[in-house]
Amino acid sequence: MYIEKIDSPKDVKRLSVGQLNGLAGEIRQALLAKLSAHGGHIGPNLGMVEAAIALHYVFDSPKDKMVYDVSHQSYVHKMLTGRNAAFLDPARYDEVSGYTNPLESEHDFFTVGHTSTSVSLACGLAKARDLKGDAENIIAVIGDGSLSGGEAYEGLSNAGEMGTNLIVVVNDNEMSIAENHGGLYQNLKALRDSDGKAECNFFRALGLDYLYVRDGNDVAALIEVFNRVKNTPRPTVVHIHTLKGRGYALAEADRERFHWGMPFDLATGAPKSEAGAAEDYGDLTGRFLLERMAKDPTLVAITSGTPAVMGFTPERRKQAGRQFVDVGIAEEHAVALASGIAANGGRPVYGVYSTFIQRCYDQLSQDLCINGNPAVIPVFMGTIAGMNDVTHLGFFDIPLISNIPNMVYLAPTCKEEYFAMLGWAIRQREYPVAVRVPGATVVESGRNFDTDYSELNRYRLTRRGDTVAVVALGSFYALGEAVTDKLRADAGIDATLINPRYITGVDEQMLDALKADHRIVVTLEDGVLDGGFGEKIARYYGDSDMRVLNYGVRKEFADRYAIGELLEKNRLTDAQIVEDIRFLLH
Amino acid sequence: MYIEKIDSPKDVKRLSVGQLNGLAGEIRQALLAKLSAHGGHIGPNLGMVEAAIALHYVFDSPKDKMVYDVSHQSYVHKMLTGRNAAFLDPARYDEVSGYTNPLESEHDFFTVGHTSTSVSLACGLAKARDLKGDAENIIAVIGDGSLSGGEAYEGLSNAGEMGTNLIVVVNDNEMSIAENHGGLYQNLKALRDSDGKAECNFFRALGLDYLYVRDGNDVAALIEVFNRVKNTPRPTVVHIHTLKGRGYALAEADRERFHWGMPFDLATGAPKSEAGAAEDYGDLTGRFLLERMAKDPTLVAITSGTPAVMGFTPERRKQAGRQFVDVGIAEEHAVALASGIAANGGRPVYGVYSTFIQRCYDQLSQDLCINGNPAVIPVFMGTIAGMNDVTHLGFFDIPLISNIPNMVYLAPTCKEEYFAMLGWAIRQREYPVAVRVPGATVVESGRNFDTDYSELNRYRLTRRGDTVAVVALGSFYALGEAVTDKLRADAGIDATLINPRYITGVDEQMLDALKADHRIVVTLEDGVLDGGFGEKIARYYGDSDMRVLNYGVRKEFADRYAIGELLEKNRLTDAQIVEDIRFLLH
Repeated sequence: MYIEKIDSPKDVKRLSVGQLNGLAGEIRQALLAKLSAHGGHIGPNLGMVEAAIALHYVFDSPKDKMVYDVSHQSYVHKMLTGRNAAFLDPARYDEVSGYTNPLESEHDFFTVGHTSTSVSLACGLAKARDLKGDAENIIAVIGDGSLSGGEAYEGLSNAGEMGTNLIVVVNDNEMSIAENHGGLYQNLKALRDSDGKAECNFFRALGLDYLYVRDGNDVAALIEVFNRVKNTPRPTVVHIHTLKGRGYALAEADRERFHWGMPFDLATGAPKSEAGAAEDYGDLTGRFLLERMAKDPTLVAITSGTPAVMGFTPERRKQAGRQFVDVGIAEEHAVALASGIAANGGRPVYGVYSTFIQRCYDQLSQDLCINGNPAVIPVFMGTIAGMNDVTHLGFFDIPLISNIPNMVYLAPTCKEEYFAMLGWAIRQREYPVAVRVPGATVVESGRNFDTDYSELNRYRLTRRGDTVAVVALGSFYALGEAVTDKLRADAGIDATLINPRYITGVDEQMLDALKADHRIVVTLEDGVLDGGFGEKIARYYGDSDMRVLNYGVRKEFADRYAIGELLEKNRLTDAQIVEDIRFLLH
Repeated sequence: MYIEKIDSPKDVKRLSVGQLNGLAGEIRQALLAKLSAHGGHIGPNLGMVEAAIALHYVFDSPKDKMVYDVSHQSYVHKMLTGRNAAFLDPARYDEVSGYTNPLESEHDFFTVGHTSTSVSLACGLAKARDLKGDAENIIAVIGDGSLSGGEAYEGLSNAGEMGTNLIVVVNDNEMSIAENHGGLYQNLKALRDSDGKAECNFFRALGLDYLYVRDGNDVAALIEVFNRVKNTPRPTVVHIHTLKGRGYALAEADRERFHWGMPFDLATGAPKSEAGAAEDYGDLTGRFLLERMAKDPTLVAITSGTPAVMGFTPERRKQAGRQFVDVGIAEEHAVALASGIAANGGRPVYGVYSTFIQRCYDQLSQDLCINGNPAVIPVFMGTIAGMNDVTHLGFFDIPLISNIPNMVYLAPTCKEEYFAMLGWAIRQREYPVAVRVPGATVVESGRNFDTDYSELNRYRLTRRGDTVAVVALGSFYALGEAVTDKLRADAGIDATLINPRYITGVDEQMLDALKADHRIVVTLEDGVLDGGFGEKIARYYGDSDMRVLNYGVRKEFADRYAIGELLEKNRLTDAQIVEDIRFLLH
């Protein structure tokens, strides 16, 4: 066994090429053992085993600095930089995050989780190096779909002008999360087909030197090329052709499904948990949209590299045909495209994760909302119950989206209301409409909901009481029910419950009416408090004697939190809220 | 005279090539007459005269749809589409905006003011056309620096995959606002030098067809090529080489200065107003940074295509040498670059307009703030007194920036405090710090300010009174002084005045202390209320009997407003605020 003796990159450098191949095999076994038991990014890391080894064999980390793009393919890098126990010992699996993390190791320079950032970050490291008169190598590792984001292009074009040492390893596995999209990938294919010799070369066009490695899973070939570019005085691309999922036949065969996964059975590839069998909003959304598409040829679903978020499996993509567009990981383009489609009479629906809609604030504001085009944006996983890596939080979409003029941001409370709102959003031609998909798991209420939301900012009073009113937004509506129930049970208070429905505005008439017989208004929202929904209510009541209590999460970058602890810490349990209300009433 | 008879593009089509050349001359005269009297984008429009004419000669607008990028080079397009009176009749100069505007004409499809969006928007128009089974031409006109933004790349790469009619006219005038930056521009040069024949071709690499027009100011040559690509079934780039400022010798000679200008003397090019002689924050910032750079070789100023925003004239850029970086119009890269520089021990200062920092929310959040790197970001023109075009508002930076965890966003009230804060921000190594440059014009207080801001969220109480406390943020501090003065004069109320200094947090201790002898807290901020600073104060006091009045502008896309009217409409005059306070006290 080699892997157990690797405490730092120094130990990699001591091995022969034959031994490195042995190491690669052991790493693959360890990855598969951990990922099948624990879940994580499977295909991207299996494909990067040899490249990560060769990088540490040739370069001198941490003096030489490696920046992994997205960094979901940094597992092998972690195993070689003092963190192999977190991959070998099941009891220690959770000691490392799924992304690079400077708090874990001096070999990591950034916490990274969104795509297309590595070249720009590496340019910064290189610029500081040059200003200080140092001479180390700076290496960005990009690929697996992340070349399609605009920031990567801005970085490459600026790197091309720097005229200094910067090595960009392009891991070309012919895939994004799903298949690649964008004209660029035709050029990568031409480069692969010509063994890197095609004259028309995207990277050279941007001013970078270029080398090609046909077999990016061949340690010896990689070492040879990395040695050639080490200490180069020029920005240089090393384009390596790898196989996503390499060494695990099921992952090689179904590269989309094994991009990322929950625990699975190694022999069959089947997920270990039954969770997949439950309803999920993505799947329901895909089904809903497909049905509508059949009736309306101008309805088009858009994804930016994550078709699964809205339930578009490969089969459904085929069914939808040209009514489904995957723009690759290019969120800015997705929003502008949607605006353009709406402007010319089409009905675009862009489904996106809360954490990734952060990438297109200016497009929401300028391309879409200033123009008032009726594009529809379901926002998935905008909830503290979703992804809990610091780079993938769903906390911030309310401040981001709801303070943009002209936008209508709706917060359904359950599945039935979600589809009522989505249906209206697609039918109407007046507003850009975003719909915050209610939470991570499907809640069925069995109730009927309005089918027309064109009269903006009309909250729905669902339980009329007095003294205390609970305004419970979207996925926190259930918490609102629990709070009002508990107020009645514990304190005999018959509280009012309100489903505000609209995140982007205040129902002044209803809020004014509450003044007659209410002393406290409580707001509940499933996201950060700062800049959010509740603060608007607090502002509205600022000149009155209404007391306002805002509940949500404090402004912080929580990381790999336990949901129960986060709720407790932010006083978001029904018991805590009721306690606060009773304290204020007395 | 031809121009006076052009009521629509139909009238262009009736002219011969000789007559079109006459028309071009008249248009140049009209542009120079208007722009020298009125101000506006000079060089970009002078360079586009022939191309705009040829486009309308060949294509059938509005059936064929033209999308101008940034749209500051759409003046000639406006003159040819029924709006020539706004260029010929001084009394009607203000009838059109400086950008395309669907409210003005059926020939405009989007309100556009930020760069790099045209290809994506055009892709949307094309996609809707294809879904509907229509067959018109879709044309994006991009260039003058706007190719460097990531959104343009995302658009081009997706266009390259569409396999349908989309014509991208690349107006290559060898310039951005200042000189071009980015490796891409080396490729444009290679294409120009080879008459478009260089094998390595950025556009072909992205999957687009490509044609080159050597003299993009030759109407006949343009007509010939546009006719060739009309109705093409393929995404096609027409790369035209034009001269920025063409036909006005002074603008041809100094293309940066004549990119945009206030009214100027046609004979000498000198600005008509003396405003240029007054101090401005850009100039002061440039001087301040240059002095610091001499002492600290790791200090580096970064701009994204607008060096003037931070006072970096061509001479100063030369002086700064490698301590000044212009990344081109690529705001995302600028933020990530700054984070990387800070991570490796450098001291980056990225100066940017409020309206353009909108383009990098995700980079602020992910690349910078999650990593907690000490980059410094002076935000210019974050004020309602700045640019008043709907696409260039400085209203939204507070909600955008201040709700990101880890960020410290400071609001100086005057020149002296600004430089005290900027100096600290550059020295410290703890936080990402943004500094909101206080307003559009320089305010000197002659006062001394703290030089250390490391104890976060400590507001400064500058006038101790009772009953009413005015928390006056940044550039609205003077308004706070006026309000407290007026309260004393008109109502005999000795109000407290507070300079909060920190936008990103609440001084709980001070706010609690106010409860003893204050009944009303008033907040004043120079930006939109929703998601802003005042709402945090309202939330903080929600559980108390303190009354809170928040002042700022309502959430809306104001356009070409008169500042006085906007203030009045939002009850932002000292008289209105005092009236509200007195009403609430009684």
